[in-house]
Amino acid sequence: MRNDYSKKSPEKEVAGKQMHDLMRRLYPICRSITGNGLRETLRILKEIIPLEIREVSTGTSVFDWTIPKEWNVKDAYVKNTGGEKVIDFKKSSLHVLNYSLPVHEKMPLSQLKEHLFTIPEHPDWIPYRTSYFKERWGFCLSQNQFSAMTDGEYEVFIDSTFTDGSLSYGEFYVQGECQDEVLFSTHVCHPSMCNDNLSGVVLCTFLARYLSEVKPYYSYRFLFIPGTIGSITWLSQNESTVGRIKHGLVVACVGDAGKPTYKKSRHGTSIIDRAVLQMLRHSGKEFDVKDFSPYGYDERQYCSPGFDLPVGSLTRTPHGCFPQYHTSADNLEFVLPANLGESFGYYTKVVDILENNRTYISTNQKCEPQLGRRGLYNQLGGRPDAEIAEMALLWVLNFSDGNNSLLDIAERSAMPFEKIHEAALLLEHYGLLREKHL
Amino acid sequence: MRNDYSKKSPEKEVAGKQMHDLMRRLYPICRSITGNGLRETLRILKEIIPLEIREVSTGTSVFDWTIPKEWNVKDAYVKNTGGEKVIDFKKSSLHVLNYSLPVHEKMPLSQLKEHLFTIPEHPDWIPYRTSYFKERWGFCLSQNQFSAMTDGEYEVFIDSTFTDGSLSYGEFYVQGECQDEVLFSTHVCHPSMCNDNLSGVVLCTFLARYLSEVKPYYSYRFLFIPGTIGSITWLSQNESTVGRIKHGLVVACVGDAGKPTYKKSRHGTSIIDRAVLQMLRHSGKEFDVKDFSPYGYDERQYCSPGFDLPVGSLTRTPHGCFPQYHTSADNLEFVLPANLGESFGYYTKVVDILENNRTYISTNQKCEPQLGRRGLYNQLGGRPDAEIAEMALLWVLNFSDGNNSLLDIAERSAMPFEKIHEAALLLEHYGLLREKHL
Amino acid sequence: MRNDYSKKSPEKEVAGKQMHDLMRRLYPICRSITGNGLRETLRILKEIIPLEIREVSTGTSVFDWTIPKEWNVKDAYVKNTGGEKVIDFKKSSLHVLNYSLPVHEKMPLSQLKEHLFTIPEHPDWIPYRTSYFKERWGFCLSQNQFSAMTDGEYEVFIDSTFTDGSLSYGEFYVQGECQDEVLFSTHVCHPSMCNDNLSGVVLCTFLARYLSEVKPYYSYRFLFIPGTIGSITWLSQNESTVGRIKHGLVVACVGDAGKPTYKKSRHGTSIIDRAVLQMLRHSGKEFDVKDFSPYGYDERQYCSPGFDLPVGSLTRTPHGCFPQYHTSADNLEFVLPANLGESFGYYTKVVDILENNRTYISTNQKCEPQLGRRGLYNQLGGRPDAEIAEMALLWVLNFSDGNNSLLDIAERSAMPFEKIHEAALLLEHYGLLREKHL
Repeated sequence: MRNDYSKKSPEKEVAGKQMHDLMRRLYPICRSITGNGLRETLRILKEIIPLEIREVSTGTSVFDWTIPKEWNVKDAYVKNTGGEKVIDFKKSSLHVLNYSLPVHEKMPLSQLKEHLFTIPEHPDWIPYRTSYFKERWGFCLSQNQFSAMTDGEYEVFIDSTFTDGSLSYGEFYVQGECQDEVLFSTHVCHPSMCNDNLSGVVLCTFLARYLSEVKPYYSYRFLFIPGTIGSITWLSQNESTVGRIKHGLVVACVGDAGKPTYKKSRHGTSIIDRAVLQMLRHSGKEFDVKDFSPYGYDERQYCSPGFDLPVGSLTRTPHGCFPQYHTSADNLEFVLPANLGESFGYYTKVVDILENNRTYISTNQKCEPQLGRRGLYNQLGGRPDAEIAEMALLWVLNFSDGNNSLLDIAERSAMPFEKIHEAALLLEHYGLLREKHL
Repeated sequence: MRNDYSKKSPEKEVAGKQMHDLMRRLYPICRSITGNGLRETLRILKEIIPLEIREVSTGTSVFDWTIPKEWNVKDAYVKNTGGEKVIDFKKSSLHVLNYSLPVHEKMPLSQLKEHLFTIPEHPDWIPYRTSYFKERWGFCLSQNQFSAMTDGEYEVFIDSTFTDGSLSYGEFYVQGECQDEVLFSTHVCHPSMCNDNLSGVVLCTFLARYLSEVKPYYSYRFLFIPGTIGSITWLSQNESTVGRIKHGLVVACVGDAGKPTYKKSRHGTSIIDRAVLQMLRHSGKEFDVKDFSPYGYDERQYCSPGFDLPVGSLTRTPHGCFPQYHTSADNLEFVLPANLGESFGYYTKVVDILENNRTYISTNQKCEPQLGRRGLYNQLGGRPDAEIAEMALLWVLNFSDGNNSLLDIAERSAMPFEKIHEAALLLEHYGLLREKHL
Repeated sequence: MRNDYSKKSPEKEVAGKQMHDLMRRLYPICRSITGNGLRETLRILKEIIPLEIREVSTGTSVFDWTIPKEWNVKDAYVKNTGGEKVIDFKKSSLHVLNYSLPVHEKMPLSQLKEHLFTIPEHPDWIPYRTSYFKERWGFCLSQNQFSAMTDGEYEVFIDSTFTDGSLSYGEFYVQGECQDEVLFSTHVCHPSMCNDNLSGVVLCTFLARYLSEVKPYYSYRFLFIPGTIGSITWLSQNESTVGRIKHGLVVACVGDAGKPTYKKSRHGTSIIDRAVLQMLRHSGKEFDVKDFSPYGYDERQYCSPGFDLPVGSLTRTPHGCFPQYHTSADNLEFVLPANLGESFGYYTKVVDILENNRTYISTNQKCEPQLGRRGLYNQLGGRPDAEIAEMALLWVLNFSDGNNSLLDIAERSAMPFEKIHEAALLLEHYGLLREKHL
């Protein structure tokens, strides 16, 4: 029999505040898919959870891909003829096209323009753009900044380096009672933006800390990785043990005020899909569910056909669907502690369901046991309704025939998983239920 | 080949009237899960159908339960200081808490109150309450009666006995052509209330009489049992032959004016479920369908996992969903002969479907046979529509490939079962169809 | 690997015009299920496609049926006492009840009336009526003509013959790369009516010509047959090779302005059902889908249980559902070239889907291949949306695990089949996909 998973979930308000504080600290750092900003971020997380920081050398083959040169940037600006910095990397890490080549030249605006990226429809916001795999340089700036630039010579300076270095990622493992794993994966490569994806980074950090403090049945693996290349790298290096992953979620965009959105795994009916839906259905909140599509975050790789892992993604508003997405407006004001706390609650509830989803067998398969005699059923008969707790007992008893897990019973009864689980514990206590030994 | 099930269903109006007359006779009797009221009720039914009355001794173990002591009550009242009976069992069998301990005491109202049950929201109605498995005494009364009771001493008298006796139930078996059984089970333990469940008792009685007069294919078993403990007892004593039950219905609450409501068996797609839905879909009436839940009447026991019988329940308004439920307002005016007759019609139609649901094989599997040459198809071609009867012939011919029963064909064609059945008989007559020998 | 099916679909406008011209030529001919009108029609089609004209002798047994005597009619009229032809076969081939016995008599109107057929609700229209298998004679006329007939003697003349001849049908086979066949079947027995079914006849003719000019993967079989007796005859004579038919459509009523309507095969989920639905879903038009029923055209025979071929029917407004159905109002004005052209486009799109529906295997099963490096993916990262073409690449890559055909992927992605097919060709070109060898 499994140990009892001892739940001591932190209060959502406290967790929300702690996550937001951590986010505030990580916000200014210029991260990318490699480099010191990424490394520095992982080091800060390590103050909270003892994660392993792994380094994979430039040039290493990972399936169809190759670890790129390590990119670092120290400074970058564009100065006008008056020597004034009209674009300044020190003010926002978004100003440099991520993975920009180094440059130090003077050029007229007409030439510079080809290297500038703006969002005309949001004139105050700086876009986030990348060019990981094509060599070029560029600046991102607000449309207002751009409009203020007059013709004339500009000094363009990007102090970036491309070196044979490594790609860094963080990994944290919580040993549970069994070797079956639950994966939480979050991308940590985005520079100064909060919902995408410091929200995912801080939620994973505090979820990891929480799970390291309880005695879970499953083992839990947390990956803090650069998007795409990071999950490809990890899968490439852990091919032989990937099969241990029984459930997983890609964690991103969990800090905005939008309704929770679940994107199903490729299978669509995995336990993780059903556990998240069970949680959402009884959350008392509106929510969205989307079928798997091969676009989005690292579920693209986990759900590639050769792995086909049961990994979904639980977000608030999904990527690309909020206007602040990949802009400077995805900032510390856009992500509120209360939203982070609420999302944290969703994740811990999913963990509760996974941990407690066992299959029991009723010791009375033929007819109901006499619950009244055991004090489990109201002794005054004739009233129109049974109590919810009594209904949960009856559902668990009738469907604990060895073929239905508690999650199956929760789904069929349309009752919240926790009521079904409480009923099962009570019945087990009275010897009316025993766990099925698989 | 099966004999023809010769249908001679009584007119619904006649049946409704007869059922209501029987109900009127049974109404005053104080029934319980054991005792003379129950026995007397079964004896009256025996005047109509030769049922067996079975007695199971107090103390007998039936699965997790034990047959209780037999309870009988001769008289009961509460007298005020003036010697006036303010509660009188002789006026309604509901006044005594069912399975009340005997008592003869004087006590002040303040003490008596703890033993009184009312329904404040319906001040004229007496509730029905029971305490089968916890020893106590009590009275049920209307809120108006209760409000009229002034402070003072009351004489409390319940002349009840608990003896080592037996639990009684009635069983009636109609031998059909084969050993496969259809079960109709109804609870007969409720005192003076009509919809729940004298309606079920009288419908089963007349349905049983009807089936004993035809030559059915199936054998039919009717159980008139006390709720819960009765079905548990019967299952416990018939464990080895329970597998003969191929279809079944729990009959209750069939006398109110509400729309028919079908509660599915645990499987949800058994033949009985499909037969009832087929009947309802073509009844021309609104109806409700509910999935199985492990609450309600004796289907809880028949559908316990160790039996998992294909037993649903066909009612009008289900238990607990009409305000008169378990009160004195569930009386002879609440249940009308016309409603009973209509319900009787629903049940006989279900029986028709079960009886006639055979699987045939078309003798022309390749292309249609030439119906016109046999006079089965309109010879004047070119008109826009085929007749319903012609369509039924075509459906039966095309789908009688050995894999589809007539019920399958009725479902797929969305035509009423009886049209499909008529078409099959006609085609069989012309040698275009033969019954599949299983 | 399959040859590339080289698509050179004619323009719909051109095809529509050509089909309507052919229809105009065929319109006056008096066709029936046998006889010279039918033969003449097939001879005209042979000018466009080299079809085989087959003759099956009167008296031949075809399953439960027998080839009837050959019917021909030279002239027919009804003359009033003034010698005026009030009904004249030369004005419309519909005037004679199809398969009418010969007659030459004088009789009063009262007697003649029993042989006259009209449509009172459409007083201008002549109905189309037949009596293939019951011997009688009759005339069809407009209600207005009928109303104008005064009492008196009429000369009735039908110069028809019944001879031991044959039933004629046309068959055209396009040899593809493989022996698997696609069947297009159309009934050619109706006299002067355009939607039902000269529209089907001309569409099949031009579709056949088109397919004979490309190099298809499948072999295509076109049947121009009298309704019912024709398909029964063909099935009876080709029983041993019928299994080659992997997909099929019955072609009828494809010339009116109504929305496309698909009637599914008996299976309901055959490739042909899915291909037609795929086409319709992305046609940008409203459409109707109906489940199989054993009534309609020759799908009744192809889908009889002993054959159960995957044959559906793609029409515009289905038979019997337009008021002009089986009347003289189903004429050259009712069917427009544009409608024929549009229907032709639906059919060629279905053929495209069948031809191109292959199953591929991604050469990178584990994680995505790096599309950017190959120029297949936008190199500027960070933008909110992927292009449709990029999404198609990702869908094809993720689901090309050997279990999903391109049609499966189109359905799951809700993208048009042609986008998915284009993506597959591009990926195959880059060596990222190879066809699965079955």
